[in-house]
Amino acid sequence: MTSNAAPIVVIDSGLGGLTVVRCLQKQSPAENIVYFGDTARVPYGSKSAPTVAGFVREIITYLQRYRPKHVVIACNTATALALPVIKTEFPHLSISGVIEPGARAAIQAAGNKPAPRIAVIATQATINSQAYEQAICRRRHHAILDARATPLLVPIIEEGRDEKDILVRLALTQYLKPIARLHPDVLLLGCTHYPVYKRLIARMMGQNCQVIDSAQQSAQDVTHRLRVSGGSAPGEGAGYLKCFVTDDAVKFQSLAIRFLGTEIQPPTLVTLEELTEPRILRLAPMRQAS
Amino acid sequence: MTSNAAPIVVIDSGLGGLTVVRCLQKQSPAENIVYFGDTARVPYGSKSAPTVAGFVREIITYLQRYRPKHVVIACNTATALALPVIKTEFPHLSISGVIEPGARAAIQAAGNKPAPRIAVIATQATINSQAYEQAICRRRHHAILDARATPLLVPIIEEGRDEKDILVRLALTQYLKPIARLHPDVLLLGCTHYPVYKRLIARMMGQNCQVIDSAQQSAQDVTHRLRVSGGSAPGEGAGYLKCFVTDDAVKFQSLAIRFLGTEIQPPTLVTLEELTEPRILRLAPMRQAS
Repeated sequence: MTSNAAPIVVIDSGLGGLTVVRCLQKQSPAENIVYFGDTARVPYGSKSAPTVAGFVREIITYLQRYRPKHVVIACNTATALALPVIKTEFPHLSISGVIEPGARAAIQAAGNKPAPRIAVIATQATINSQAYEQAICRRRHHAILDARATPLLVPIIEEGRDEKDILVRLALTQYLKPIARLHPDVLLLGCTHYPVYKRLIARMMGQNCQVIDSAQQSAQDVTHRLRVSGGSAPGEGAGYLKCFVTDDAVKFQSLAIRFLGTEIQPPTLVTLEELTEPRILRLAPMRQAS
Repeated sequence: MTSNAAPIVVIDSGLGGLTVVRCLQKQSPAENIVYFGDTARVPYGSKSAPTVAGFVREIITYLQRYRPKHVVIACNTATALALPVIKTEFPHLSISGVIEPGARAAIQAAGNKPAPRIAVIATQATINSQAYEQAICRRRHHAILDARATPLLVPIIEEGRDEKDILVRLALTQYLKPIARLHPDVLLLGCTHYPVYKRLIARMMGQNCQVIDSAQQSAQDVTHRLRVSGGSAPGEGAGYLKCFVTDDAVKFQSLAIRFLGTEIQPPTLVTLEELTEPRILRLAPMRQAS
């Protein structure tokens, strides 16, 4: 049993998941949040399913010591590649991702159209997984999907370039032009980094296309789950935000404001050796026995 | 003792080190080569020194089973952040990197000028380490250095964009324009990925600037070391190239041709668990004893 004051754990490959934290703090300011950015192994978007699932397994195993009342995998790639297997491996934990809330919101935004045109942009790994296609088409069989990888956006955002940068505009134009030509009703931002450029993307897509943000929807999903289960944080005060990273805590702290909108306390560094320690402890006796 | 037929081990975070292999194969076709691309944890260029040193330590520990006659750390970031400590940790191995050969070549290219202007482009981590500044200024005290991080180039190259792509040209223009304005005598490509765009970079820098490639110089350095020590491979036939990766062997194989110029045999996947296994075996008895 976990208490209502227990933290929500938010996991990401790096900084992107802070956009989910930002929405969570806005919607449910009293919640305590433990954030984990796997900055030693970022990005996940170009890696394989077993590798990414292994990373997420190690992080959740490590964070169980905080007895979280809920775990959000706030990374589209990790949700797409690892959420189903991770849920079966930690059956006692309440775990959610960002794909299902994003897909639900895209369909809501498309309104009553029987065959809405829904475009999705995401990392290569998320697109390859077809997780959004499956989540959307399960709910709206006749939706016309256009899912495209936009692999440069995460590195561009992590370089700290803002919307005025001509290279940002060119990259977005290259990626969005072929999508806009098909006049989608909705464009779903299938990566928690992308909300940083949401206004520019919306302007480029035009008035007839709604731009939906999987970060916002995922935070709403968590708030809703806690409310329904009676697990919301007590009191009115602001909850804490405690950040962990696997590399370069100083850089993480300096870039966090772009994603969170406010400054953070210095993050705690968890080395990859500390992170994988439980596995060593588990393996040691087995090796002894043989 | 290792035999002359023993392989040269070439280590990189991903694909970039294959540009060193390409030069090695051209200069010393009889050499056997074992290549290791740490694709599960690529890129190294945005990570800290202890983290990158830990990755390199694990890889060399793993590859010792091939009894290499020489190890090349064919990644500028890993050389800058880890080579000195790794050399002390493996004193029985012959190990070289890419920074010293690159710096030597840049000075040679600058000719007799007492205060040559030398520009360096590299990843953020390589630039932060000041490894090139130190290596160049140790040899030519009055060299005027201009070292700049160009963090988008690796992701752009890994996306498979060629020199005709307008975004490639814009990114290079943004990065190179402020450098060209200072009229350097030499531009050193301080990342083994960058030779993929060498012709375009040379054209943008103009005739009065020599573009030097750390990959080519590093391969020459290894060939020279082996010749001097009498360790060159015997015979005239072509040596083997055996590749190992930590993630997505299929993707690695399909992209390798861009860096190597020829196709490779399917790489062997080494999972991160296999890679870190020696550490588990070493730690297990210590934990028992306490």
